[in-house]
Parts: sequence; C-alpha cells; structure tokens
Amino acid sequence: MYLADEAWPDLERYFDEESLAIVPLGSTEQHGPHLPEGTDHIIAEGFARAAAERTGFLCTPTINIGVSPHHRQFHGTMWVEPPVFRDYVESFTRNLAYHGIDRVIFVNAHGGNVQHLREVGRRLRDDGTIYAIEWMWNESIPDLVDEAFAQNGPHGGPKETALIQHLRPELVHDDRLEAARDGGLTSFDEATMRQHGARTFYDAIDNTDNGVLGDQTDATAETGRRLFEAASDQLVDLSEWLAARPFAELMPKDHV
Amino acid sequence: MYLADEAWPDLERYFDEESLAIVPLGSTEQHGPHLPEGTDHIIAEGFARAAAERTGFLCTPTINIGVSPHHRQFHGTMWVEPPVFRDYVESFTRNLAYHGIDRVIFVNAHGGNVQHLREVGRRLRDDGTIYAIEWMWNESIPDLVDEAFAQNGPHGGPKETALIQHLRPELVHDDRLEAARDGGLTSFDEATMRQHGARTFYDAIDNTDNGVLGDQTDATAETGRRLFEAASDQLVDLSEWLAARPFAELMPKDHV
Amino acid sequence: MYLADEAWPDLERYFDEESLAIVPLGSTEQHGPHLPEGTDHIIAEGFARAAAERTGFLCTPTINIGVSPHHRQFHGTMWVEPPVFRDYVESFTRNLAYHGIDRVIFVNAHGGNVQHLREVGRRLRDDGTIYAIEWMWNESIPDLVDEAFAQNGPHGGPKETALIQHLRPELVHDDRLEAARDGGLTSFDEATMRQHGARTFYDAIDNTDNGVLGDQTDATAETGRRLFEAASDQLVDLSEWLAARPFAELMPKDHV
Amino acid sequence: MYLADEAWPDLERYFDEESLAIVPLGSTEQHGPHLPEGTDHIIAEGFARAAAERTGFLCTPTINIGVSPHHRQFHGTMWVEPPVFRDYVESFTRNLAYHGIDRVIFVNAHGGNVQHLREVGRRLRDDGTIYAIEWMWNESIPDLVDEAFAQNGPHGGPKETALIQHLRPELVHDDRLEAARDGGLTSFDEATMRQHGARTFYDAIDNTDNGVLGDQTDATAETGRRLFEAASDQLVDLSEWLAARPFAELMPKDHV
Amino acid sequence: MYLADEAWPDLERYFDEESLAIVPLGSTEQHGPHLPEGTDHIIAEGFARAAAERTGFLCTPTINIGVSPHHRQFHGTMWVEPPVFRDYVESFTRNLAYHGIDRVIFVNAHGGNVQHLREVGRRLRDDGTIYAIEWMWNESIPDLVDEAFAQNGPHGGPKETALIQHLRPELVHDDRLEAARDGGLTSFDEATMRQHGARTFYDAIDNTDNGVLGDQTDATAETGRRLFEAASDQLVDLSEWLAARPFAELMPKDHV
Amino acid sequence: MYLADEAWPDLERYFDEESLAIVPLGSTEQHGPHLPEGTDHIIAEGFARAAAERTGFLCTPTINIGVSPHHRQFHGTMWVEPPVFRDYVESFTRNLAYHGIDRVIFVNAHGGNVQHLREVGRRLRDDGTIYAIEWMWNESIPDLVDEAFAQNGPHGGPKETALIQHLRPELVHDDRLEAARDGGLTSFDEATMRQHGARTFYDAIDNTDNGVLGDQTDATAETGRRLFEAASDQLVDLSEWLAARPFAELMPKDHV
Repeated sequence: MYLADEAWPDLERYFDEESLAIVPLGSTEQHGPHLPEGTDHIIAEGFARAAAERTGFLCTPTINIGVSPHHRQFHGTMWVEPPVFRDYVESFTRNLAYHGIDRVIFVNAHGGNVQHLREVGRRLRDDGTIYAIEWMWNESIPDLVDEAFAQNGPHGGPKETALIQHLRPELVHDDRLEAARDGGLTSFDEATMRQHGARTFYDAIDNTDNGVLGDQTDATAETGRRLFEAASDQLVDLSEWLAARPFAELMPKDHV
Repeated sequence: MYLADEAWPDLERYFDEESLAIVPLGSTEQHGPHLPEGTDHIIAEGFARAAAERTGFLCTPTINIGVSPHHRQFHGTMWVEPPVFRDYVESFTRNLAYHGIDRVIFVNAHGGNVQHLREVGRRLRDDGTIYAIEWMWNESIPDLVDEAFAQNGPHGGPKETALIQHLRPELVHDDRLEAARDGGLTSFDEATMRQHGARTFYDAIDNTDNGVLGDQTDATAETGRRLFEAASDQLVDLSEWLAARPFAELMPKDHV
Repeated sequence: MYLADEAWPDLERYFDEESLAIVPLGSTEQHGPHLPEGTDHIIAEGFARAAAERTGFLCTPTINIGVSPHHRQFHGTMWVEPPVFRDYVESFTRNLAYHGIDRVIFVNAHGGNVQHLREVGRRLRDDGTIYAIEWMWNESIPDLVDEAFAQNGPHGGPKETALIQHLRPELVHDDRLEAARDGGLTSFDEATMRQHGARTFYDAIDNTDNGVLGDQTDATAETGRRLFEAASDQLVDLSEWLAARPFAELMPKDHV
Repeated sequence: MYLADEAWPDLERYFDEESLAIVPLGSTEQHGPHLPEGTDHIIAEGFARAAAERTGFLCTPTINIGVSPHHRQFHGTMWVEPPVFRDYVESFTRNLAYHGIDRVIFVNAHGGNVQHLREVGRRLRDDGTIYAIEWMWNESIPDLVDEAFAQNGPHGGPKETALIQHLRPELVHDDRLEAARDGGLTSFDEATMRQHGARTFYDAIDNTDNGVLGDQTDATAETGRRLFEAASDQLVDLSEWLAARPFAELMPKDHV
Repeated sequence: MYLADEAWPDLERYFDEESLAIVPLGSTEQHGPHLPEGTDHIIAEGFARAAAERTGFLCTPTINIGVSPHHRQFHGTMWVEPPVFRDYVESFTRNLAYHGIDRVIFVNAHGGNVQHLREVGRRLRDDGTIYAIEWMWNESIPDLVDEAFAQNGPHGGPKETALIQHLRPELVHDDRLEAARDGGLTSFDEATMRQHGARTFYDAIDNTDNGVLGDQTDATAETGRRLFEAASDQLVDLSEWLAARPFAELMPKDHV
Repeated sequence: MYLADEAWPDLERYFDEESLAIVPLGSTEQHGPHLPEGTDHIIAEGFARAAAERTGFLCTPTINIGVSPHHRQFHGTMWVEPPVFRDYVESFTRNLAYHGIDRVIFVNAHGGNVQHLREVGRRLRDDGTIYAIEWMWNESIPDLVDEAFAQNGPHGGPKETALIQHLRPELVHDDRLEAARDGGLTSFDEATMRQHGARTFYDAIDNTDNGVLGDQTDATAETGRRLFEAASDQLVDLSEWLAARPFAELMPKDHV
C-alpha cells in the first residue's frame, strides 16, 4: 500500500490493524559516468514499493536527498548537513506515531545515511515512541552479492549497476561500463584509505577519479533482477517478522 | 533536464552555462475522500518536470514531505516541524551553490510551505549566496482559476481535483466528488475562521469535517489540462525571466 | 490591568479568576519620512493597554523589536532573526502558564511578525499549554479602513499615519505627508511585486524609495481616533469572547 | 536621541557621525509588596533615556522581559530562558552593526541579566563586530549607595524603592514599606545562602517570603533623585569615554 | 569511591544506598609562567577524589576543558564555547539520574565555569531531575585564604600556586615565582577593570601581561597542604549535609 | 609533551615549530564484571601519552565521557547525547587552531565515538580549519589482535582486558575472567544481531547479560604489553606521517 496514492478514508483500516511503516531513503549524488545521480533513491524506492505491494504494509514517499557531502566534487551531487538530515527524518517519523505507527523500516540505499538513521532510531526508541531499524538490500544477501561479481565496490560498482539495469535500464549508459571501471578504483588494494589504522580519506575523490569503485563490466539486468528478487524476499520476511513482534519486546530493556 | 536521471559528466555543460535550478516541493497530507495524499507533491513535480523539459533548465528531485501539521487529524498525513523543514530546504539549496547555482525556483504546491520557503529564501539572499523565489501554479493564473470553477477552495477543492484528474487520473475517486463537496466546507462564508479580526482556527478539521473546501463537482481532466498548460507557460516564462537577470540585480540593495 | 505597574500581591486575585493575557508586540523600523520608527509598537501598545483598561484583562509589557529585516536598508531599523523572535515570544508566553494563563491575544501591529506568532501559537496549542491568537487592528475593521482612505498601503500608509496622529501627534511630521506619498509607492499597480505569479521582492526598498506605500495626505488625527475606537471595540469583544471559551474547545480536536 | 521617536531620514546624520548605541534592558518580575513588577525596566529606561538626552547619543527601545526564573513563584513574574535571552539580545545588537554601530552600552537594571549580557558581549567582540559592555547604575556609585541606606538589599530593597519613588512615585505603595521589610529578608546574615562555601539557593523564595531584601523604610524620593543624578553622571561619562575610544583598542588583543 | 575504577557490579550497592555524585570540573588554560595549564583540573580532581575517599561518596572522572576564552591569547589555552560546555555538563549529569543520582556537587576550580554550572543546575532542578550545586574550594574557607597571603589573586595567584605545590610539586616552576609576580598584576588597584561602574575588560591579557594576578612569592607547599585539608573538610561536610537532605526539600518551592 | 603539565611560555616553541595535536578520547561505561568503567579512557590516554612522549608531539588532556547510551542499563555508565559530544569535541578542537594547530589525531578507544569523530572531522576539514583523523589502536594492528586471542570481542573482550592488565593491572579483577566469559556473549554466532540484513539491536544488553563479548580467559598482561607496543609504534608512525604532510594536501580537493 502506497500512502501517497491513497485518500485518507482508505487508510483508516490500515492504521486500525497495523502499526508498521516502510520508509524509503536514498540520495541524489554522482554514481560515476554510467549511472544516474538518482541511483540510490531509485533503488530504495524500488525495494520499498515492491515489499509494500507484496505484503500490504504501508510505504511512504521517498526521501530523495541524503548525506552525501563526500561526493560533492562531482557535478550535481546534492546533500544536506548531517544534523539537518537526522532532524528531518526524526520529525516525520516521530509524527507517524500520531497515526499509530510504532515500528518503521528505513529502506535505505545509501551508505552515507546509515549511521544517521541509527542515531534517529535510537532517539525514537529511547523515548518509547517508535522502533525503527535500517535495512540495506546488499546487507541482506551478502553471499549472493559476493558471488555475483568479480570485483565488487561499495559505490557505483557492479551491484548498483545491475540493479539499475533491472529497474530503470534506460538510465544506464551501458557503453560506458568499461570507462567506469578504468577511470575509477577497481580494487580496494589500490587504495590507500588508511594510514597505520586511521581512516585518512574523507571524500570519494580522494580515492577515485571518476567517483566509482569496482568492476562494472560484468553487471547485467538479469543479475540485477535476481539480486532484486532475493533481497526483496528478505525485506518481505523482515517486515513480517517485525510486524509480529510485541511492542514491549522492541523497546529498551530495563536497568539491570 | 532532470538531475536525478543524469550521470555526472553529462551535467558539466549545464553548470558551465546555466546557474538556475528548479526545485519541486509539496506535501503528503490528506486531500479529502477523493484525492490522494500525494496531491501536492504530484502537482509540484508535474509542473517542475514539464517546465524543465520545455526549457532545458535543471530540475531536482522532489521534496515530498512538508509542513502539514494542520492536517494531522486525518489518517496518513505526514509532516515535519517548521524549523526542520526550513533547515532541510536551506541545506540542500545552499549546497547547490557549490556547483554554481545562484538562482532557484521553488515550485511549490502546498500553501503551508510558502512562508517557510520565503524565510529560507531570505537567508540565502541576505548572505549573498542564492536568489530563491517561491512559485505556486494557481498564483500565476488567478483569473483563469477563478473563472474555471463556481466554488473554489484552497485545499482539496476543484482546482486541485482537476489537476490530478489531468496528471494522474487513476488516483482520483471520481465517484466521491459529491461526497467531498457535501462533507466539507463548500463556501467560505459558512466558516467562522476569524473572530473580530483574529484568525482563530489552527487545524483544517476546525472548519471542515472531511478535510476539504470548495465544490469539486465541476472539476474535469480537461479543465485540469487547460490550467496545467496555462500555468506551465507562466513557469516557463518565469524561468527564462529569472535566468536572464544579472546576479547583482537579484541581490539585496545597498543601505540608503 | 497593566502587569508591569502592579505589585505581585495585587495580581493574585486576577490569576485566581482569569486566565487571559494580552501581549502587545510591534517593531522598531523605518516608517517613512513622516512617521517614527516606533510606529508599530506604539500602535500595538495603544490598543493593548486600552482594551486592558476597558475590560480589566491583564496586559503585559510590550515587545518592541520584531522581525524587520526587510526594512534594514533604512537608517535605524532594528530586527531580530525569525527563529530568535519565535523562541523569545514562545519562551515568555509559555512561562505565563506557570501563573495559570491558558489563553493569549498577541496584539500585533507589524505584518512581518504575523506568521511567526502563528507558528508560536501552534507550538503552544499543540502541546496543550496555551491557546494564543494573533490580532491586527486593521484586520478587525477592514471595511472601515478601506472607506477611510483613497489609497491605502500596508506600511507607513495613511492608516498608520492617522493612528499615530491620534496616539502620539507630536511624533508625526505632518509637513512631510506629501513627500511621503510622492517619494514612495502610492498605488500597488505601479509595483512589479510578482513575476508570473512568483513574489520576487524581498525588501521594502525593492519597491519604494522612501520605504512607505499609499497616499498619506488624507490621514487625520480624527480619522485615527475613529479607527482606534472601532478597532478597540473589536479587541474588547475578542477578549471577552476568548475569556468565555471553555479551555477544551480551544485545544486541538482529536484524530478522526 | 531616542531611536523609536525618530523618522529614518533624521537618523542619517547620527549614523554618519557616531557609532555608539545605548540599549536599556530590565525585567518584569516581582519586586515585593511595595514596588511594581516593572521596576527593573523602568529604572533601566530611566537612566538610558536621561543619558541619551544629555549626551545626544542614540537610545533604543527597552527590552522589558529578561532572565527571571528565580522569581517565578510570585504572581506575575515573566521570564525567558537564558539561551533565548542571549540570542535575542545578540540578534538585534548584531544587526545594529548594519547601520554602523560598533559599540554598545547595555544599560541593565536586573542582576539576573548580567552574566548573559557579558556572554553576548564576548560573542560580538570576539568576532570583531561590536564592543558591548554592561552597566548597572548601582555599580557606578557603590559608596553613595552604601551610605544612603542602613540595610541595603540586592532586590526590591531601599535603593530600588528610592529610584521608583523618584521616577514613578505613583507606582510605589509607600504604605507597605514596613511590611516589605518585615516580610522579607532584612539582613543577609539571616540567610543561609551558602553551605560550606557552596551557593545552595536557586530561587528568591528560598530566602525571602515576600520576595525582597533589605530595609525599605528609609527610602525616599529625594534620595532616589540624588542617586539617579549621580549615576546618570557616571553613565554620561561612560558614554563619552566609550565614544572616544579608537575601535581597535576595544577589540581583542592579539595572541602573545 | 571512584566510578572509573570500578566494575559495574561493584557499583550496584552504592546506587541502592546513595544518590549523591561528586563531579570534578576544571579547565586547561594558562596559569602564568610558573604553573601548569592543568592547574584548575588538577585542583578540582584533587579535592573531589579526596572527599570521595574520605566519605565513600561516588566521584566521577574529571571534565578537563571548560570555558576559558578569556585566556586564549596565551599559548596552549583550550576552551569550549559556553553553550557547548553547558550542554555537555547537562547531558552527562542528567544521564546520571538514570542510575538513581538525584543530587550532585560540581567540584569546580575554574571561575569561568561558575555561572554555567549554575545555569545547568537550574535546568536540572527546575524540571525536577537533579539538585546540583557548584563548590569552589576557596569560597569555603575565605578567611583562611585571606590570611594566608599578602596579595591574593583570582587567577594563578599564591593560593593556586600553593595548592599545586602541595598536590603536584614537580609541576611548579618555583624559580619563576618572582617573575610571575613582577610580570603580572600584583594588586587589583593597579587595574582599570571598570569604567564608571561598567566592567570593560574581557580578556586576562587586558590586565596582565603574563596572565596572572597577585603575589606568588609567599606560596609554599605547606600552606597548600593546610588550605587543601581545611577546604577538604568543608567538602566532606557539604557532601554529608547534602546527602542527608530529603529530596523534596531540594526541589523548587511551590508557587505562592 | 603533555599540554596540561606545561606552563604557557614553555609551549611557545612547540607552536612555532609544529602544528599537530594528539587528543585522547574514551568513555566511562561498563566493561563487564572484570574491567573498570574507565577502560576506554585509560587506554586512549595510555596510547596518546606514550606516543607524545616518544615523538615530542603535543598531547592534550583526555575526554573521559563519550557516546555510550547503549551501555546505560549497567550501573555507572556515563554518557552524553551524540549532538552534544560532537559539539564539545568540535569546539575545543576548532579553538586549538587559534594557536596554530592544523592537524589532529583523535586517539579514540571507544567504538561508539567513531562516527561522531568522523563527522566532526568533516566539519573542521570542509571549512578549511583543521584536518582531524580518528585512530583506534586495534584497527592499526588487526592481524596481531586476531592472532592473540581465540575468541575476540569488540567490547570488554580479551584485547581490552589484556591492555588494562598491562596499563593498570590493579584495576582488573583477574578472578572474574571466567565469569566474564560465561556470563557474556562468547561468540558472535550466538548472537542474533541482524534480522534479514537489518541490524536490530540497539543496546549491549540486548545481546549480552553481563555487558561483554568474547573469551577473556586468555588475556595476559604480557599480551597486553606486546599489543600496546605494536600499536604505539603505529601511532608514532602515523603522527610522523601526518606531521610531514603539506597542509594543502590534507584539505578537500577542488571540484572536478
């Protein structure tokens, strides 16, 4: 069920019967020469809407702009400051409680949002309002992702390429996959991301000239479809698992 | 040109040549028994994307959740607190300046956002960063809108109904238009919105039982199309007018 | 009853019997070549104190500095940033609740404060503390004001001129009324305040060279007296109407 | 020169020639059974306006509500939270710099404001904007004050009583001076304000049943007049001393 | 009992039986040519740990960096902005309540922290969470301190010198005591800290070339020991006095 | 060189010649039945002081209280809210720039601080003030740590046990190592920390009854010494590497 498509009287029954909401969040940021800047929010929205359709759980509209200052040197990257992102997400999530929502899945497709969603989740949980957890599709099927590609990459790599080839093929520049690989950072061993244990880099451009990592050339729409379905299964299961929990079990434990 | 669909190298030329961005903003909130909760962001996105396509100016992704606490008594209304909304919009708009953007049109379709976009606009202009103005489609064609309907209404009335009938007909419950009219506040004269000059109401529900105003029954997709095109023309003209201004003319005048 | 003139034991009975406070707020900002910068706070204080005297309701001291950045190009304009204004007003209003106040009339004479007082009002109402409404004198007698002058104006025009001629005649430069009219923006038709529906101006100086609008030459102290009395009647009525409301009726309605 | 009484063109010369502003700040809070709640802002305004008249320096309108939570148990006390007070004062003071003001005297008559005005003063000075100092009348003539009364008191005592007897005699309940003394804390030795060196009290009511300290019975309007004139002389001298300083001398010294 | 040295199960009994915590706070800032920059936090920690050991009350780790912008012109001075200091102290103190703490002694050895600890104390008390008071060793034995030295000084003077000679003798440059005296401000009469009653200085360097005041040459470790023991006795007594208070007595009194 | 032990004149040469500061940060939180609550700040301080002594670089005092809400169910855990922690660290770090510091190593021994130090580091770097990186000892010698113990653990496990056995043996309850292991979570496989890819736990107590993980029984002071020395070597190398970088190289790269 997609909240934005419904008229309010048609939502009454849902809020009477359920207390779970699925919230897609992504970013708008460079994803190399071959992928659209909307990659992360397209993926998040794809998963969230698919799981909502399969389960009947409520999906909200998508948050399209996230925490991406580390990609700003590349044209078009949009971002908000971290405190602003946290407060924005906290505010609308907290307000969902007014309708009876007490558990939320942040379907997130941008690594840069993770820690902030966790921080918001703690705020909401620690004051007893809402239990919110963050889900990234690739974390739910790590082995499948590893097997699918020779050289993975956390940003703009083959796994994101395959997903967009599956979800929005017209937005992928298939003729630039080799350029994406050759102009970026194929293997992490090439990178000097740490010095004596300290993470020394702050921006994507510190490590990769074209903004992406991994080898994109073995991505295909078919692989994308397979990964999408497998991870969607996980999200469906997660939604049902979460909906079935007693609320008290989700809240903080008492002091010893 | 839609930012989220582009790969970063394909945006270089735009930022070299232009400094204007079009930003759609709406809300997700009840729009009566006949319209979807996404009405405002659907309309904002519709105008922004159309004008961008016609002019070649850059359109960003849509902000789907705005300042709607006054609709919260109806199922599904989402909102953020005003300070949070302002900071979120300010943050990503300000960051667009990093790519060279120095003028922005907030294509807004939610009345509750207006004053906040103006406040953000002042912050950005007063420190010399960006000149941002707020545009609502109906403000650009007031006479056309007045003529089109017998009983207009600022929220969920015939003009928004007609636009959604045009843009997303499958989301309108045409069989509920009479119920929308009869269950809401048809004419403002019926309302007691002020007492001795003071605005006394805070929430939509204070005035209207089903959340909407006006007479929706004479809305048609054809009227929606006509209004959409007329207002799109205005937005196109506004974009071109704004792009042609010297930056200094847009900045605050000096002290007398 | 004026709070600042009373010793604390003499206020006990008021707080026992009543729960209404009248709070005057204005600005200190340019009002053209003919009017004092204190125009708005003088007017607000005038109405608030008069109504308090007539009704016995409690009036607090005046907030003299408001949200006036749009007048800053003219010598002497003082202002605070909007978030600071909101927090200041919220803080002392909220603290009035400690003495039992649960309803407040913001007697405001500065247009630039309106939206901020509304936002503060919502904060106080939504958490169940205080019901606060904003009142501007001219909104309470729109027809009288329209009839009184040939060319009105929202700032420094004949209606504010007439009121200061009535309240503080020694502060009006009567010999500059023609200069005020001729050096300002007499009729709004002359202005290009909007482009294709978008409000494009931010500062008073964008539209008016001397900071004021309308035709001040037909303002007189007698007209000022008449308007003052008529609007004071409205404020008296509003105070009594508000005092008579059950508190629950003033608080937000429940979720549908 | 009183800013609020002037039309903007008449301020041009001042800002051309001078860069000093005098800002009166007080509080609205209980001052015992004999004095009005406005005591502190009446005194501050009295001194600031008198000094401005004598010297020609610019005086702004008065800030009537300050940091007085420690008096809240007594009817009518108004207050704002400290961070809000600081931000409000900082905001309008900082904005005075837009007109060329670079030095400010906070004419303050409320002890509870002192540390906050100092903190604001540091913010403004450390970033090189404005040099602002806080002045309390009794600090400028400590010996005179000590000699004038047998039992002084920091709040609602004879020195404040005498000043209001001089400035606004109609607001003093002269028939309650004995009651004020007998119902309050006459001598500090009676108080147990510290335990083993730690200040243990937070609120006025912790030490004094009627909110005041000292022996008010030897206050007279004549003593008030004498103190007012002596302290006004000091403020006049301070204004002239400050106006004569080179700006660089007022700014922070360099790092050693 | 020192919290940081204990394993959590060994703290259970304390929280069962007691509700008092001792929190040492100081600064890291210049203390002249003869004393270490850690002087204030060394002293605070010294007193807090000694009192905790003697009484069995719980002592927390030390806050080493406080509000010291007024010493920044001297190499090495560290400081945080006042709002940040207040929020940091408020946050960890408030969280102590989660374990049952309802009264706190801030053992503070830096004058620049005092007003901020008072402000935090009010926040915690006014919402009924914790009663926190600020204690500075020299305030508890003012007569002893006065008698001990010919020329005292509030910063880097003989009393702080003597304490560090007692607590950490290896950190005192005894061969620089004369230089400290001669390069600083020996007697306050030399200073022009006020003009006509207004405090005009903001930074230590405005008054003293080497950052310190008073005559350090008659400081000895033996005097330090004596003062330390006398003030420790006071802190012990304060702790026991505070622990014995009923909680309700420590909370704000009711409205009259 | 330890800043807090130095008198300010003795720091002049350092700031003339160097621009690096080492800042130790930890936490005060439960570390199981066998380790002191100060474990993390003891370790951080140990490394920072050792490296400063070996290299001559400047070490500041330690931040003893960090972001530890996830341990709050266990007696004695202290914590500050994340925004407060970030602002506190940002404030004093930023102020170090006043003395010429332009690069900082946060020697951190608490996992819960990492993301916040990174966020602060970005703030400082993005505005061109300071390049700050976060270093955790175990990240610098991952292979050594892995080899040293059969069952490691991120919190209160054998590696932290060994370090405290080395640094402060008197604070380790060696007789509780078995109890620590048996009452906690020995192996991560036992945990259900994720559901379908989503991290579902928020608090330590969700996974471990006594607050710790891993098998502590093969920790020894000798292993602690070996690890301490190896990681100290890394920190020394990191300090020298960082000091040798040209400042421009550490700042953000330009827009492509």
